[in-house]
Amino acid sequence: MNKQAIFNLSYGVYVITTWGDGKPTGCTANCAMQITAEPAIIAVSINHDNYTNECIKDKGVFAINILGENVKPLLIGTFGFKSGRDFNKFEGIEPLIKEMLPVLPDAMSYITCKVINSVETPTHTIFLGKVTDCDVLNDDKPMTYDYYHKVIKGKSPKNAPTYQG
Amino acid sequence: MNKQAIFNLSYGVYVITTWGDGKPTGCTANCAMQITAEPAIIAVSINHDNYTNECIKDKGVFAINILGENVKPLLIGTFGFKSGRDFNKFEGIEPLIKEMLPVLPDAMSYITCKVINSVETPTHTIFLGKVTDCDVLNDDKPMTYDYYHKVIKGKSPKNAPTYQG
Repeated sequence: MNKQAIFNLSYGVYVITTWGDGKPTGCTANCAMQITAEPAIIAVSINHDNYTNECIKDKGVFAINILGENVKPLLIGTFGFKSGRDFNKFEGIEPLIKEMLPVLPDAMSYITCKVINSVETPTHTIFLGKVTDCDVLNDDKPMTYDYYHKVIKGKSPKNAPTYQG
Repeated sequence: MNKQAIFNLSYGVYVITTWGDGKPTGCTANCAMQITAEPAIIAVSINHDNYTNECIKDKGVFAINILGENVKPLLIGTFGFKSGRDFNKFEGIEPLIKEMLPVLPDAMSYITCKVINSVETPTHTIFLGKVTDCDVLNDDKPMTYDYYHKVIKGKSPKNAPTYQG
């Protein structure tokens, strides 16, 4: 088995946001995909250990913030490599509020979702979200995971499904 | 709601293959994502109306064929816009056999999976597959869905989650 093959699946780079204990929180994710067109349903995969996972289970809603190629790399680092349990990831960021959810003003698009189903796997929860609102915020090009690795020289956080140990 | 936002999610271009009635069959898909790293589990989304959906349910196994940028566009058309119910999509193609599954020799990578769980949505089934084998077949660059649209000027089949009516 040559696991390099698995890394040839293509992804984008997203921040999944929701509400923590009265504060906005979120984490970087690259695994999001549309499941049905009408109604629009999107699946995201979030590690059990991520604070965002328990917050989505608690609140039943999340927003997908689609990052563009020109987003500040610091944003990916803040949301990908720190935990919302002990760090306010929104410090210095004034979130837009869309469908009562915190959205990153620097995202190139956002999609707000209401959880309609979820599936557990050994390490991750797949949340199925029905789209409640979405919009394009700027004309940046969506960042692909490949671009993130090759151009921004980014790494995968330990909790990512695509983590290479 | 500006649904253009949803089309800013990033995907690859894949052919999901399995066995039909004694013959290899498959369909084009763009929605596949890794869910967990260890064990490696991958989710794919297949429309209820696709023959491949019922074949995967019947056989419990599937292969993800990752297409590269230099794959023959005809291959995408054959697997995306015809039905395996009344058309032998493998006509003229000698499949590789990997873990007893038919694999396209022109794929740049393949991943064979055993279904361990599935989730129904109004139009699609999400199959969760545990990876049983995978390999890189050539050094082509994985085709992104964006590349397929912009460079190959491809369209979405009616059954795709990303179909724009």
